[in-house]
Parts: sequence; C-alpha cells; structure tokens
Amino acid sequence: MGTTQLESVQEPKYWHLKSVLNDALDSEFEVGEILPNERDLAARFGVARATLRQALEQLELEGRLQRRRGVGTTVAPPRMGVAVGPSANVWPGARLDTWNTVGCVEAVPPARIGGLLGIGAEETVHTIRRERVMRNQPVGAELLYVPSASVPGLSTMLSPASHAPAVLRELHALELEGEDRAVELGSASAQDAKQLDRLPGAPVLVVTTRYFVGGRVAAASVATYRADTCRLTFGDSGAVEVTHHQPDTRQAS
Amino acid sequence: MGTTQLESVQEPKYWHLKSVLNDALDSEFEVGEILPNERDLAARFGVARATLRQALEQLELEGRLQRRRGVGTTVAPPRMGVAVGPSANVWPGARLDTWNTVGCVEAVPPARIGGLLGIGAEETVHTIRRERVMRNQPVGAELLYVPSASVPGLSTMLSPASHAPAVLRELHALELEGEDRAVELGSASAQDAKQLDRLPGAPVLVVTTRYFVGGRVAAASVATYRADTCRLTFGDSGAVEVTHHQPDTRQAS
Repeated sequence: MGTTQLESVQEPKYWHLKSVLNDALDSEFEVGEILPNERDLAARFGVARATLRQALEQLELEGRLQRRRGVGTTVAPPRMGVAVGPSANVWPGARLDTWNTVGCVEAVPPARIGGLLGIGAEETVHTIRRERVMRNQPVGAELLYVPSASVPGLSTMLSPASHAPAVLRELHALELEGEDRAVELGSASAQDAKQLDRLPGAPVLVVTTRYFVGGRVAAASVATYRADTCRLTFGDSGAVEVTHHQPDTRQAS
Repeated sequence: MGTTQLESVQEPKYWHLKSVLNDALDSEFEVGEILPNERDLAARFGVARATLRQALEQLELEGRLQRRRGVGTTVAPPRMGVAVGPSANVWPGARLDTWNTVGCVEAVPPARIGGLLGIGAEETVHTIRRERVMRNQPVGAELLYVPSASVPGLSTMLSPASHAPAVLRELHALELEGEDRAVELGSASAQDAKQLDRLPGAPVLVVTTRYFVGGRVAAASVATYRADTCRLTFGDSGAVEVTHHQPDTRQAS
C-alpha cells in the first residue's frame, strides 16, 4: 500500500499513441470531421500501421471515433445520456415512455427467454419489438416479452396493428411491484443491427429487465443500446436534478 | 407492421456459424474446456479461417468464450451478477461495501474528473484506488475521487496506510442525498488491466457514479468492470427477492 501504486504500470506502445491522438482530436479536429487515412496518420506520428490501428480501435471502443460505412473514420460527438428506467415501478408503454412499437407476435419464445420468465417450455409469449430514437438517431432496440398467461383477458381476435397496444393495455392493468435490471456487453443481432443502423456483431450494451407482479415475473425485456453512441444513465436520486450531459468521464487513470 | 418483421433480416455467414458453434458449446464442451485450434475448427465446420475467427470474436464479446494468455480459448462460465449500487444513499466504504482499498493519493485530478466533480482547475482531490473481488476473481477496479474541499476536517498528517480510511471516515460524516450512475463501454487502462487480470485495452463496463451532498457533487467514482465475466445488476425493487444467477439472457432475437 503506498502512493506510487496508482501509476506504476508500464503502458504498451499504442497506448501512448492513443493519448497523443486523443489530444490531437481535442485540439485539431471538429466533431464529425473525417480523419486522414491510416497511411498518412501512421507517417505523421511515426508509428507502424498496426500500432496506429490498435490505437484507433481503442478510441472507437471508448466512443471517441466512429467508423461509418462509406464515409471513413470520423470524430464522434460526446455519447448521449440515455435514461434507463428513470422512474421505478412504471410499465413499458406507459405515459412518457420513449419507445415506439414496430411489431408484435405471439409464439413460444427461445428457451433462455422462457427461463428468464420462469414459464414452461410450451407456454406462449407475446413478443413486442420496440425501438428508441433520440435526436433523430436510433439508440435502442428492444424485445419485450409478455407471457400469454400474464394477460389472460386479452382478446384472441387482434389485428397486427392492435396486437401490441392491447397487450400493453392488459399489462398496465396489473399492479407492478418492482423491477430489476442487468447490464452487460453483447453484440448486435442482424435485426438489432438494422434497427440501430450498425453492422451485425457491433458491440451493444444489453439491458435485461424483469417486471414483478405478485412475487413472480410478469414480463421481461431485453434491450440493446448502441455502445458507441450511448451512455446509459441510472438516476435513482429523486432529490437531485440529474444532468445527462456530463463532461467526458469515459475512463479513469 | 406485421408478424414477419421480427425475423426478416438476412444474417451474415459467420452469424450462422456462431449459432452452430453456440450449440456445439452447449452439447459437447464443459465450462473451462479448451477449444480445438482454429485450423481444426475451421476444417470441422467447413469454413474459412477468417469466418471462424469472426464467429469466435462474437462469442467472446457475448461472454461465451474466453481467450486466456498461455492457455488458449476456453468455454466461459456464465457471467457473474455483480450488484452495482444495491442500496440507494450509501457511501463507498460503508458497512457491507465489497471493495478493498489498494492506495490513495491527494493531487489535482485530470481535467475531465475536475469537470465531473464541478471543481476549479487547481483544486486537489483525494483519489482512492479500490478493487472488487468475487469468487476469488477480480471483477472491478475503481478510482474514487473526493475533493479536498468535501472533507475539510481531514488531518494533514496522514500515513499512506491511514489516508484512505480517514478520507472515507470524513465522507461518512456527510449526509448523502442521493447518487446517479452512468454505464458505458470503455477499454481497460494498463493499471485497471493489471488489477482485473486482463490485457490493456480489454473491453470494460465503465460505471461513473456521482454522490450528492447539499445539492452538489461531494464525491464521484469511475469503476471499470470486466465486460467478459460480469453482468452488472441494478435491483431497485425492494419488495422482490432478486436472484443474481438468471439463465443466459445475453442477447435477444
């Protein structure tokens, strides 16, 4: 235990380049500006292409750069603060919900979703696909799973257009006791990628939420957020005004 | 809007391979088992090495595989549920806190940390480096920033060993009004990587927390969690027993 321990580790070569590039991005480039090509950049900083590429990949992971199809590598704007579960005990689709429904089916879900919901292998689930847009950009793609048994009063004569609204209406009639959430790293499926305007396999933050009624899971959702452009915010401090545009706090030390 | 929309996107070639591999991992391999080498795997599934490698990278991103130095690629155990801020309004270092202090310094912080804390450019901050271990594995590395102005009663005669405990003690004397959190994707610094037993640049989930006292930020922390082994859980449902070992819910659709 001592004071020197905070900065005692040798950093690899591309790491130094990364911080040099970071400074250059701050001082010489505007948000949205296209970076020079890799050969020119490598020559300017006197490094091998492989080293440069490692540094660029890190900066992309940290949200400083964006690779855009047909455009090149551009300087990324600060990540958007996306509020996840800003209020406790509110059903999806309730007032002020920022998600839009794009489709709905009723079917037996994949086994892992059945496990998440705690239902039998043959039980059907209403699956509502939703999307979330902020500042005209897609930020989230979600599948909301509502077991058919959770909404037994649902009419069986529903048009595709009335299916999702009817499921949500039945859900809202239930008293929501609470929810829990988990966040982890994942990769975008082809369908998610299309909704998020990314390539399949792009890194996403996966938020799994379980909604509890009567001590059991009445619904669950799996939402994927673009990891390049989003910071997920969890403001549980009712007394405090939470700003979503903090300064850059991506990475410490 | 319609029922076919949920599954209408063409998936790339390696994506199919990924799901085939996923099934093979379930049926033929144990957790911790070392995978055959890439050449043998590519031959078995009749794909090019590049396609195989893409699929393996996806499975690593999704936490199904782990690449371990000097060992090879192994089947990953299910991700650990790591509770982030399980109770509201609790100071770091309070009872039941699962973090261990590894060092402490007082210095002017990086500009972005000063911005996060809302302090002047010349103001000093106590920086406490902490680590979190679960099941004998390092899961998180944290820098906790406490502006010197937040703990004015602190003695100036502190040994390295008594520095962090004294800062935390002073902090606990303040009435915590609330906190907010943001989660985003980042890459491990060399120091974080060492604490987390990863290579620098490895993907990490970065959790930034601000602690509020008297309407302003009295302390802040930036914690990095291993993205390969951790699911961050946010259980705000006091009424509900939250299990941290859900079935696999990494990715929907």
